Amino acid sequence: MADQPDIAQMRRAVALAARGLGTTSPNPIVGCVILDADGEVAGEGFHEYAGGPHAEVNALRAAGERAKGGTAYVTLEPCDHTGRTGPCSLALIEAGVARVVVAVPDPNPLASGGAERLRRHGIRVDTGVLTEEAENGNAAWLTFVRRRRPYVTWKFAATLDGRSAAEDGTSKWITSPEARADVHRLRAEHDAILAGIGTVLADDPQLTARPSRKPLLRVVLDSDGRTPPGARVLDSAAPTLIAVAEGTEISHPDVVRLARTPYGIDLDGLLAELYRRQVVSLLVEGGPVVAGSFLRAGLVDRVVGYLAPALLGSGASALGSAGVATLAQTHRLIFHDISPVGPDLRLIARPAPPKETDVHWNR
Amino acid sequence: MADQPDIAQMRRAVALAARGLGTTSPNPIVGCVILDADGEVAGEGFHEYAGGPHAEVNALRAAGERAKGGTAYVTLEPCDHTGRTGPCSLALIEAGVARVVVAVPDPNPLASGGAERLRRHGIRVDTGVLTEEAENGNAAWLTFVRRRRPYVTWKFAATLDGRSAAEDGTSKWITSPEARADVHRLRAEHDAILAGIGTVLADDPQLTARPSRKPLLRVVLDSDGRTPPGARVLDSAAPTLIAVAEGTEISHPDVVRLARTPYGIDLDGLLAELYRRQVVSLLVEGGPVVAGSFLRAGLVDRVVGYLAPALLGSGASALGSAGVATLAQTHRLIFHDISPVGPDLRLIARPAPPKETDVHWNR
Repeated sequence: MADQPDIAQMRRAVALAARGLGTTSPNPIVGCVILDADGEVAGEGFHEYAGGPHAEVNALRAAGERAKGGTAYVTLEPCDHTGRTGPCSLALIEAGVARVVVAVPDPNPLASGGAERLRRHGIRVDTGVLTEEAENGNAAWLTFVRRRRPYVTWKFAATLDGRSAAEDGTSKWITSPEARADVHRLRAEHDAILAGIGTVLADDPQLTARPSRKPLLRVVLDSDGRTPPGARVLDSAAPTLIAVAEGTEISHPDVVRLARTPYGIDLDGLLAELYRRQVVSLLVEGGPVVAGSFLRAGLVDRVVGYLAPALLGSGASALGSAGVATLAQTHRLIFHDISPVGPDLRLIARPAPPKETDVHWNR
Repeated sequence: MADQPDIAQMRRAVALAARGLGTTSPNPIVGCVILDADGEVAGEGFHEYAGGPHAEVNALRAAGERAKGGTAYVTLEPCDHTGRTGPCSLALIEAGVARVVVAVPDPNPLASGGAERLRRHGIRVDTGVLTEEAENGNAAWLTFVRRRRPYVTWKFAATLDGRSAAEDGTSKWITSPEARADVHRLRAEHDAILAGIGTVLADDPQLTARPSRKPLLRVVLDSDGRTPPGARVLDSAAPTLIAVAEGTEISHPDVVRLARTPYGIDLDGLLAELYRRQVVSLLVEGGPVVAGSFLRAGLVDRVVGYLAPALLGSGASALGSAGVATLAQTHRLIFHDISPVGPDLRLIARPAPPKETDVHWNR
């Protein structure tokens, strides 16, 4: 057994973890690779769905006796508590592995302590291997646990000049069938999807994912309770939560009432309610007013833009007022992934870390 | 000597041709590779600057005696007329080459006929090899010759939501130093650069390229003759043409007067004047009104957009009214090249060919 952790094995574990995207919520995605004492791959596994066996357990099952004296590569610190399944720390100890390599320590106070227990049983534990890649894969869950709110992705579709509708309001379709299919895949990775009342009234979207492996919670941001009873977003395909301002009357079985703010209603309050419902990831699909409100509040963790190779020159912008008065206040992002999707382009960007000049120094 | 033309040799000739970009205007870019009778590379050349030797002559010089019985790969049909240099068809005949492979036939009635003369002298001529790639490289010159107007590129810089300035008008800088350096390279590939009076009054740009291998003609679109005498665009760094509406008084040595139209002044007339001045390529740098006018008139051959990973949500759009009232009329493009430039993204797109459904059929 080599002394240095094998990055390639952790990379494999990260790839395995990603296969659980969309079905593990409210759990993290986790992947695990077990090598036998000779350093050969003995078993692989990932956490497939909430309530199902953890990645380590699946990998240990596959490895069988060969796990004894071997090494486990696992993308997240093995859990140390008994939830719907037993603690993974114990399973690794019982299987007799000699070493555990971990990418990301568990930030969940309920579940952490696994590394400590392993060490107490004489197992060598290395941490911090390929941490950034593993964190990226679990960005939603880590945000959920650390910030106690869902990870928020804003998705938009626009022309090259940033318009999401023509002058007369027509918007079907700005992007290609390939891009729209990609949006359905994106939706299926989320626990909830949100649209503003403007979009509901203008486009009457159903806000579902096809195909989806689980029901999505649909959320309508509707301060004044104007969602029409016959709106498609209220059909039986999935549950729907309507967020209204305090004091608003509305006849819908599932309503959250939030304080009014100068720019709408209290989004922190909405996200706290979604956290309570174990919504790990929220897809905000607009329109421009809603997108501007989330950005203004600093509540966008990721932007996914579908850009069509087209120019309109007039019509509604994809993004409305977002609290920026001058260029220095612009919402700076970093491109994370650029991919062609049919004839269109999909851009994934994340907020840029604050610049040094943005930091106030006491000296 | 193999019977089928060697695509790889033509690809090499296309790459050689590109080395002349920016210095051959009003001539095309041309590359040439000469193989000896055994199929070995004997010489290479490209057209380096207007008035200088043509690609074939440079390649024949390099090949010397080895050209006899060999094959010439040339990106454009060898010229057959005596301009500032003698006809290339004759040079190839005198060198004794046995075969000439051509990518693009010469559309210039003054210069064409080279292939015919070669054939009359018993030289085998193959045409249509790697035509599309060679045409792409010479897109500007081919447009100039075929349409009798400059090839028009619209360049813009914007945020992901299509804004080129914040609410208070600040726009320095939306894109990175790397993107701005790339714009200077783009400018240096052009013969002329155009801005509207709005941009001149707002930003007072100098409209030059640094470094540039030749003086660029600066063009200001200024219907009412409002360019201030002290504007930087009028400095001594390069010549400047001001395009005004008929009847407009202005004290500037170089003015073109054009008919007023419902949307400004006659852009076809402006391009005809630039054609007369042998401007092969024109870079339109905005602002939004000018860009909209060129698009509305169907006079944009290429779009180069620099997108910053940033969101503004308000402020001026990069593109103003472009004659589109409903989505079906949108200016459809095709992405041609997507490249990261520093933290930004450069998108190159060209108009999509008309769809079958856009064509009127008489049946």
